[in-house]
Amino acid sequence: MNISLDGIFRPKSIAVIGASTKKGAIGREILHNLIEGEFNGKVFPVNPKATVIHSIKCYSTILDVPDAVDLVIIVTPRDQVKSILEQCGEKGVKGAVVITAGFKEIGEEGAKKELELVEVIKKYNIRMVGPNCFGVLNTDPEYSMNATFSKVQPIPGTVGIMSQSGALGEAILDYANSLNLGFSMFVSVGNKADISGNDLLAYWEDDPNTHLILLYLENFGEPRTFTRIARSITRKKPVVAVKAGRTAAGAAAISSHTGVLAGLDVGAEALFEQCGVLRVGTVDELFDVAIAFTNQPLPKGDRIAVITNAGGPGILATDAVVSVGLKMAEFEKKTIAYLRKNLPPIASVKNPVDVIAAGGPESYRFAMDAVMSDKNVDAVIVIFVPPVVVDHRAVINAIVEMIEKHKNVKPVLGCFMSEADGIAGSEQLTERKIPIYTFPESAARAVWAMARYRKLLDRPAGKIIEYKVDKKKARGIIDKAIQKRNDHILGAEALEILDAYGIRIARSINVKAAKDLKEAARTLSFPVAMKIDDPSISHKTDVGGVVTDLRTQAEMEDAFKIMKKKFANKGKKFSGVIVQQMVRGGVETIIGMHDDPAFGPLMMFGLGGIYVEVMKDVSFKVHPLTDFDADEMIKSVKSYPLLIGFRGYPSVNVPVLQETILRLSQLVADFPVLKSFDVNPFIVTSEVNKSKAVDARFTIDSQ
Amino acid sequence: MNISLDGIFRPKSIAVIGASTKKGAIGREILHNLIEGEFNGKVFPVNPKATVIHSIKCYSTILDVPDAVDLVIIVTPRDQVKSILEQCGEKGVKGAVVITAGFKEIGEEGAKKELELVEVIKKYNIRMVGPNCFGVLNTDPEYSMNATFSKVQPIPGTVGIMSQSGALGEAILDYANSLNLGFSMFVSVGNKADISGNDLLAYWEDDPNTHLILLYLENFGEPRTFTRIARSITRKKPVVAVKAGRTAAGAAAISSHTGVLAGLDVGAEALFEQCGVLRVGTVDELFDVAIAFTNQPLPKGDRIAVITNAGGPGILATDAVVSVGLKMAEFEKKTIAYLRKNLPPIASVKNPVDVIAAGGPESYRFAMDAVMSDKNVDAVIVIFVPPVVVDHRAVINAIVEMIEKHKNVKPVLGCFMSEADGIAGSEQLTERKIPIYTFPESAARAVWAMARYRKLLDRPAGKIIEYKVDKKKARGIIDKAIQKRNDHILGAEALEILDAYGIRIARSINVKAAKDLKEAARTLSFPVAMKIDDPSISHKTDVGGVVTDLRTQAEMEDAFKIMKKKFANKGKKFSGVIVQQMVRGGVETIIGMHDDPAFGPLMMFGLGGIYVEVMKDVSFKVHPLTDFDADEMIKSVKSYPLLIGFRGYPSVNVPVLQETILRLSQLVADFPVLKSFDVNPFIVTSEVNKSKAVDARFTIDSQ
Repeated sequence: MNISLDGIFRPKSIAVIGASTKKGAIGREILHNLIEGEFNGKVFPVNPKATVIHSIKCYSTILDVPDAVDLVIIVTPRDQVKSILEQCGEKGVKGAVVITAGFKEIGEEGAKKELELVEVIKKYNIRMVGPNCFGVLNTDPEYSMNATFSKVQPIPGTVGIMSQSGALGEAILDYANSLNLGFSMFVSVGNKADISGNDLLAYWEDDPNTHLILLYLENFGEPRTFTRIARSITRKKPVVAVKAGRTAAGAAAISSHTGVLAGLDVGAEALFEQCGVLRVGTVDELFDVAIAFTNQPLPKGDRIAVITNAGGPGILATDAVVSVGLKMAEFEKKTIAYLRKNLPPIASVKNPVDVIAAGGPESYRFAMDAVMSDKNVDAVIVIFVPPVVVDHRAVINAIVEMIEKHKNVKPVLGCFMSEADGIAGSEQLTERKIPIYTFPESAARAVWAMARYRKLLDRPAGKIIEYKVDKKKARGIIDKAIQKRNDHILGAEALEILDAYGIRIARSINVKAAKDLKEAARTLSFPVAMKIDDPSISHKTDVGGVVTDLRTQAEMEDAFKIMKKKFANKGKKFSGVIVQQMVRGGVETIIGMHDDPAFGPLMMFGLGGIYVEVMKDVSFKVHPLTDFDADEMIKSVKSYPLLIGFRGYPSVNVPVLQETILRLSQLVADFPVLKSFDVNPFIVTSEVNKSKAVDARFTIDSQ
Repeated sequence: MNISLDGIFRPKSIAVIGASTKKGAIGREILHNLIEGEFNGKVFPVNPKATVIHSIKCYSTILDVPDAVDLVIIVTPRDQVKSILEQCGEKGVKGAVVITAGFKEIGEEGAKKELELVEVIKKYNIRMVGPNCFGVLNTDPEYSMNATFSKVQPIPGTVGIMSQSGALGEAILDYANSLNLGFSMFVSVGNKADISGNDLLAYWEDDPNTHLILLYLENFGEPRTFTRIARSITRKKPVVAVKAGRTAAGAAAISSHTGVLAGLDVGAEALFEQCGVLRVGTVDELFDVAIAFTNQPLPKGDRIAVITNAGGPGILATDAVVSVGLKMAEFEKKTIAYLRKNLPPIASVKNPVDVIAAGGPESYRFAMDAVMSDKNVDAVIVIFVPPVVVDHRAVINAIVEMIEKHKNVKPVLGCFMSEADGIAGSEQLTERKIPIYTFPESAARAVWAMARYRKLLDRPAGKIIEYKVDKKKARGIIDKAIQKRNDHILGAEALEILDAYGIRIARSINVKAAKDLKEAARTLSFPVAMKIDDPSISHKTDVGGVVTDLRTQAEMEDAFKIMKKKFANKGKKFSGVIVQQMVRGGVETIIGMHDDPAFGPLMMFGLGGIYVEVMKDVSFKVHPLTDFDADEMIKSVKSYPLLIGFRGYPSVNVPVLQETILRLSQLVADFPVLKSFDVNPFIVTSEVNKSKAVDARFTIDSQ
């Protein structure tokens, strides 16, 4: 299969199959948009029932078109699409955009039909967008292709945008136009039967016309592929995403501890964070961020200056800056002195600078000049509330002048609190590529995204470490469970898997009968703990199924007797006990994994017991983990101070924790059959040798 | 002083003092707005330099006006304002709106001038808005008064709005007009030298024209007054607020534990919550919420139905509904059956209902009819993404028809994802008072506010309980500290204050010399703890200043010896120890208070130790507390499950905790001199008698 998408985005000729003479019909609107947009190539309408459409000669079938056709747009009834694609194959078409709906999105029957299309395109080496999509566009003047049925004509620009919702596509094009935001390419991916979001990301990675990528996602086809591609592309250009469907995953039935905690939306959150993708919550935030990125340089840091002519909006901006996690810049002394000298006496010369309502163009000029030259300032938000007493056109001129003077050094974002449509003269700013917002919160969010992207660019890439492990031993244990059709691996066997992967474990021995206690006492060193060996009891302590701190064989024997009496009592067969070496001191942690249907394995870390169970204080990352990821997982729980010696607590060996997490990540990579696990507790102490896993449970796909 | 604001808002005649002939001057624009807005009374321009302004005869001074004048708008230079107010007093004017700036907002000199104004108005019983404000308006046709210098003419309506920022006032009027939102009254309060936000709330409480109150606040003049008024008014009409300056408080120097945790913004948050005021984050959210409240009935619950013609926006809406804390409704069986029968076969008939792109007016009609009749649905969000293939006017007609049919029963919010200006025909919806949003998130936020208001209306009012306490004893201890100019009350004395307020304490005795240990042993029952009695050491355990579980007098003597040696060692005078009865078992909690400069006393509750110090798991309420407040404080910490018997932990007596908090609230009311305290720990056990305060520290204003 050809991997390039040039057949879709860079055609020399296009046929619209199912072109229509009827105004309002999709088959007419797409043809119209291609012509109206002055597609830089030949367009052929195809429809057996017409001889001419939109003043262009119409052909009965694609095979009748006398010239070569690179791309077809298909708008026919569903059941014709397959045979049309066959004809396209014969004709040597390279790309197809299938607008027609009625495939996978309507259920089983449609899904079958969709698979048939895929078979055809594979046979003929055609790349396909859709089916069930809104079309594609490429504003590059060499192509100038608008193959959508949008009612608005897009503005050429540098943003590549992918929408997984066709309907939202129209809304997106509309909204972008209202913000004067220009696209390089736009793709409505529809059902993604062939071309996926991941393909587009890969295609755009080196596209010189695309400087910023916006994604509207409903799911990740292949999260592992997404991770790989996104990690690479975000080092070259920013990717901003809205991910819908945050709450869907919650419904799935989930068995492991880690799985329950994963819940809601941590998968997407972790995935984006690790890949360096900037996630925003809503479509309008997507655009707030986009107009900043496309028009302004990145800030070098997170120190923001605010200039305003009104106190209230200045306070709102300060709040917004701080609450998105940025800092208000502290000006250099010379800046303050300069402002004091040049602004009206009642102006505020600290950040936020308030040039006051009477402050006209001169005040803005002085303030911007000083603030943009201040080395403690990384980005500037300029607020202007047009008062009656000031000529707002002159103020806008002053702002433009100062931006030109300090060109491309620091980002400047405007906030004009006026009618929704902006004020007269503000189009000047749009021309000068100054992003303008109505409310300071939007401006703050946009600078946040830019500062965050800068930070992501600067963070270490991290590496995936390969440890020497006994994979064969682990495979033996897992295979045995699969053969027995066990869903779980528990107790001693579970710990043996960890042991095979170089993770220290508290030794344990299963004891079925009192006579075997002697052997156990010989093998393990005292003190030991004794636990009832019954997988059906998950909170053993609560039911008296755990006795700790046994120091002699006699104590062991007594404990065994009591436990046998207690658990054989309830009409159940007594299944024996586990005798385990005790780990003294240290901090209980839990390390888990849950194989998310959408994101693949999610790794979890948290402090054990109450911190996990009551406080839900855990961190997640998407597998596979780099050393950097493991480090961040540990540091990002709120209870982290308890690991590094908070108020009399002993500090523990954090590197051994990190290594344990990475070894478990390797285990996950080696055995896709693992559906989840909880290593709970892994007790970490100040000494590497005394930090051990005490209990673990795996669930496996044994079907 | 007269308490009514009628002199301001219901004048029969207005003089504009400082009226100007110059277009663009504030003194001309206000006069113009009064005339343009057809003020239903007489308007008199006053300016010694003119004989006529805006075609109306102009007078040299207010005293020259031949008729009575109810209200004056003052736009003169600052230094004339005082003598003009004197003249107004002589004239018998009832209200003054002082637009003129240059008072408190510019510093000390201005503040002095402002105080002079206040003296004059008090003398003459004039009520005043401002100085330094944008004006006032009352759209009631009986008055029809626009006494602002706004460039836009407001729309009459039912919203009362108070802005603490003049500049934002103009922006607010602009933005409201763009949303077609109408005002009853608008007030820019300026420096609030006389009329405050609290006065306005009280005035609007019974104003029949005002159904909804919007506040833009930068601070609370009198938080206790605000609390009292807001608690009452929010039971009658919703109050929605934006509070700017969320981060300012963080800068203040703060000494107590509770104070440090209070930080950022908890005061405002707690205050709003307790008063039933709906807080939103931004000015645009304020309006999103306002257009829903003014036009739609309150929902009876929090179960939301979404109807859409496009999958993506439906998912976004579902996300938004769930993430603001509302629920997606589960339809009745008959609803699903009806939808299945009447919608296209590939439509989704579960919530969100997707009538699909081809779904025209009929589909919307069926879907809305069914969903609005469903008894499991409390509110409906209708999304419409206008597709090419559908006549959107017909769809809008269908939506209107269904809303008329089910009139005033459930709120319906529209979301039309199209150009920012809305789609042709949507003005019909505005006329029908259907709030329309561009993005589903805004609609969800608006329903959230309505559902939240309904919930606040339903919650119990709570009562402030008065316990019988020994106030005199507490006063004795506090007065002694003040006489000694001590900032702190610690140890045994601090506990005695609690004892006086009926809070059980762990008895303790200060021991300076070994010979006194015997007496201590006799008075207290074993086991006891011994702590170094040095107020300069705040974490005594960390430095070995605490010995616990002493069981005999001999053990006490040994411990005393060691402690004396340790602490006399460091060149410091040994100050003795505190011997205290030990409290066994139970859960450590901390109950604190911090007197916030803006909000007055903030009460805090949390579980002791790590939960407070590392996890910051605490709850705050503004003083005074009702029984309901105390109960909510306890239940809203994340670690609450540890109090009610989580996994083998013993459950404790929660009522004694509640009572302790309420007794402390009473103490705070009785002694405004208290600046902060930490009762840390208060150990709560399963038995009331064994739940005791172990340590406490107060800081007092001893100056």
